Amino acid sequence: MRVDLLNTGTELLLGDVHDAHLAFIAQEIFPLGLRIAERRTVPDGEAIRDALTELFSRAEILFVTGGLGPTTDDITREIVADVLGLELHQNPQLLASLRQRLDARGIKWTSRIARQADVPAGAEILPNENGSASGLYLKANINPHIPSPHLFVLPGPPRELQPMFLASAMPILRSIVQVPASTERRLYKIVRMGESTVEEAIGEKVLAIPGIELGYCARPGEVDVRIIGEPDAISRADAIIKHELRLSIFSVSDETLEEVIVKLLGQRNETFAVAESCTGGLLANRITNVPGASKVFIAGYVCYANQAKIDMLDVDPTLIEKHGAVSEPVARALAEHARTRAGSTYALATTGIAGPSGGSPEKPVGTVYIALRVPDDIMVKKLFFPSDRETFKQLTAQAAFDLLRRKILGT
Amino acid sequence: MRVDLLNTGTELLLGDVHDAHLAFIAQEIFPLGLRIAERRTVPDGEAIRDALTELFSRAEILFVTGGLGPTTDDITREIVADVLGLELHQNPQLLASLRQRLDARGIKWTSRIARQADVPAGAEILPNENGSASGLYLKANINPHIPSPHLFVLPGPPRELQPMFLASAMPILRSIVQVPASTERRLYKIVRMGESTVEEAIGEKVLAIPGIELGYCARPGEVDVRIIGEPDAISRADAIIKHELRLSIFSVSDETLEEVIVKLLGQRNETFAVAESCTGGLLANRITNVPGASKVFIAGYVCYANQAKIDMLDVDPTLIEKHGAVSEPVARALAEHARTRAGSTYALATTGIAGPSGGSPEKPVGTVYIALRVPDDIMVKKLFFPSDRETFKQLTAQAAFDLLRRKILGT
Repeated sequence: MRVDLLNTGTELLLGDVHDAHLAFIAQEIFPLGLRIAERRTVPDGEAIRDALTELFSRAEILFVTGGLGPTTDDITREIVADVLGLELHQNPQLLASLRQRLDARGIKWTSRIARQADVPAGAEILPNENGSASGLYLKANINPHIPSPHLFVLPGPPRELQPMFLASAMPILRSIVQVPASTERRLYKIVRMGESTVEEAIGEKVLAIPGIELGYCARPGEVDVRIIGEPDAISRADAIIKHELRLSIFSVSDETLEEVIVKLLGQRNETFAVAESCTGGLLANRITNVPGASKVFIAGYVCYANQAKIDMLDVDPTLIEKHGAVSEPVARALAEHARTRAGSTYALATTGIAGPSGGSPEKPVGTVYIALRVPDDIMVKKLFFPSDRETFKQLTAQAAFDLLRRKILGT
Repeated sequence: MRVDLLNTGTELLLGDVHDAHLAFIAQEIFPLGLRIAERRTVPDGEAIRDALTELFSRAEILFVTGGLGPTTDDITREIVADVLGLELHQNPQLLASLRQRLDARGIKWTSRIARQADVPAGAEILPNENGSASGLYLKANINPHIPSPHLFVLPGPPRELQPMFLASAMPILRSIVQVPASTERRLYKIVRMGESTVEEAIGEKVLAIPGIELGYCARPGEVDVRIIGEPDAISRADAIIKHELRLSIFSVSDETLEEVIVKLLGQRNETFAVAESCTGGLLANRITNVPGASKVFIAGYVCYANQAKIDMLDVDPTLIEKHGAVSEPVARALAEHARTRAGSTYALATTGIAGPSGGSPEKPVGTVYIALRVPDDIMVKKLFFPSDRETFKQLTAQAAFDLLRRKILGT
């Protein structure tokens, strides 16, 4: 069934308010086999009428959000009734509960507020536990003369819409679509491969499976692959993806690389520390965003200045003089001493040139050394990420975490 | 002029990716007198064609985002050319710079990547400094037989779209709309006051000035105030805002708090260090995002575990035993020793309970101590930010940076 979403609200189009409805509704209806085909955002007022008319001609289920409040620009209820040729009737129970609600809060009663008790003929009321504006459900073709989809009219504030959606809209949706819908979805989060490399590895093979949908989403140092289809197609695609991408898949649920590391270390009762020059605290910051990080993360040495490398981590000044701060020997010394100082199982170290200045022909901006000290070994990788400063830091962090992850997994 | 926005991307409709384009574009075009009349979000593929065709009939300026990458579901470029009846030509300069970009990164060249060098006949190329997909500008009615709006085709990733928009799209937009040169816009970035407190302080007074537009945007620990109007109205509003908000204004250009600190310290040839328990590297990470941070930032001690506080910064273990790690004496010791160790002018320290666990009735989740050691004094603030873990870290970082900023300014 085709599902569309119409968000109304001038404030949404000014860009000051982040619209949370698409993400919430999309994720809730997915298990019913429903996906949003199109989302529109229009201002309060008459633009809603045009959008409704257009969407009525294609949607089978339509969600409309916003414009149910008491102010003059809240006219969604009136437009819906008008477009569908339905009369509005004041609902006495709704009116009484509105009055009670306002009295309890000491808010003055106005005729504008009373409009919130108006209901189009034949509509079902979706109670609002967290606000004054009730939602509405109007079944498909509620006026036999005007073709219309199943229509859900929902309040704008997420803390009102979300509980209402779960309590009242979902049961109606379940009866409309008659689940179980067999469509499944899988997510694979991939590190150390670019988007086009990932596609080359799996694209053709996966798309050769009938009925599979495949999508990619790239972020700095990370590619998400999504597949959607019937269980049979999904399990065939899953086998291909896992075979082709293997250890580059760091998560099949929605975890970050740092969450995976905190989990892996926690399971093994192991710990780690970081010595950060060029990443400047990003590794520590990302790890400490994970609840429970304190069990596995001991310490971070952000040794930004050369003197700090010497003072904090006993790096031999002659090493820096001879090889430069951005060098394999210095990366090695940082990881070595961070592990000893912190008394951790592992230590990661980064030293590189984030730019925009500080590069040289020999070591251009983007050059980075990542060292990993493990109990019985030490390894150093030289990488090159010529990009803006923050992306450089992100790419370095991804590579460093991935190095640690693979080592923990024993590969 | 009517402006519409078309966001393309299946991942957007699945609700997994937060779409940042509407907010960004709406705020940038606002000073030009432009507002977005409608935003649509459609999946990759043929739905783009239908949406383009419909929007061509009403938009005068149309922004299309996404689908310019190298994978098979990236077909925005092809659909645009097709709908407008324009041939695609491979642009040799674009091809050469793509090749160079990929070679520099050691990424294998594929024919799919080469598609990114295809340009519809007559389109202007909008260079992408942060990715491989160039943007496109096609002037209104570029094919005289097919009515079309001014069309901007932009890449999906915000870190590519945003710099391109500012550098290339804005100048074109300015020439299209020919804004009256007299409209000015001012920005005030405010710390230590919530949105409603800011509004209470300035709202009525500023809005009493004829012809002024006033907007707020709140983020964790920060409120942006924007005013737009004729020079005369602007200077009256400016006087009110500066008088009411004074030192809570940390920037009147688009600087972050960390940029302000790097600038202030740089001007004074002063330096600083941080000792971070609950912020876990966020202070260091934010400071090292600023180009030139190495001139003023010496070292960060991310002493997450109690033992790390003792080992890294000589905190007396009996202090921790007696008062707990989250306490005024420990915050004080951290700042004191961080300054001595790093040999810096200033040192900031944070220790608190980020949650979700670890709270107690006496020290609930959200409790934080921030200490600032300056050459001749030390101060400690106890604050309470009961929120989720990442917001807690951000609010603490804002408060810590603001404490340092005010001290540097001698207030």
